Amino acid sequence: MSVSVGDSAETTRTVTEQVLEHFAEATGDRNPIHFDEGYAATTRFGGRIAHGLLVGGIISSLLANDLPGPGTVYLGQELSFRAPVRIGDEVRCEVDVTEVGERGRVTLATRAWVGDTLVVDGVARVLAPG
Amino acid sequence: MSVSVGDSAETTRTVTEQVLEHFAEATGDRNPIHFDEGYAATTRFGGRIAHGLLVGGIISSLLANDLPGPGTVYLGQELSFRAPVRIGDEVRCEVDVTEVGERGRVTLATRAWVGDTLVVDGVARVLAPG
Repeated sequence: MSVSVGDSAETTRTVTEQVLEHFAEATGDRNPIHFDEGYAATTRFGGRIAHGLLVGGIISSLLANDLPGPGTVYLGQELSFRAPVRIGDEVRCEVDVTEVGERGRVTLATRAWVGDTLVVDGVARVLAPG
Repeated sequence: MSVSVGDSAETTRTVTEQVLEHFAEATGDRNPIHFDEGYAATTRFGGRIAHGLLVGGIISSLLANDLPGPGTVYLGQELSFRAPVRIGDEVRCEVDVTEVGERGRVTLATRAWVGDTLVVDGVARVLAPG
């Protein structure tokens, strides 16, 4: 398998109540900003939002499933949370290869969008499968 | 609530089959390195490993639950995956405040350990609750 600068992939995932519930069960994060509409309405967000790292997890699934794909070894991920993701939002994640180094080292730009709003951006470092 | 340089918190979570299953349901990542022991035995890891971003999610739950705690706004997270986490491992996550800036901006060192092995390290940027 060969990975080249400019290769890209994307995936879309809807943040349902069930998705949020599974993420909370996995991580132990049941904060009221995610689950208590009454509390969340009083915050700067004006309502419940999804966990930021949930979007990170969807980005990592795209790396693992599609580009570079199965066999990828994850070295690192930077994430910047730009805007909230709401329950019910459809999140579109995209990854673009920006650098291919020695011994399979690959750097990818990683972004997530809700409609036209960039909600998360960042950089992934991986080893592509040999 | 006041956050000071040197404040720290930690949490421990065991990566059970159920935790892995919930994370896969949340993110859509069912890669064989996480779920297929036969395949995983043939890889450099010699067996199944947990999703790297699962550990990121546990770190984020510590920020949200404990330090700075409920009301924290997540701005960004860097993660470096240093060593694999196996199914059944007990992961100890710790966060330490390294910088307190203006308007509630706080930087924390974030680390995860399995026994004496540093498995994930990184940096979190947050807004502490006012």
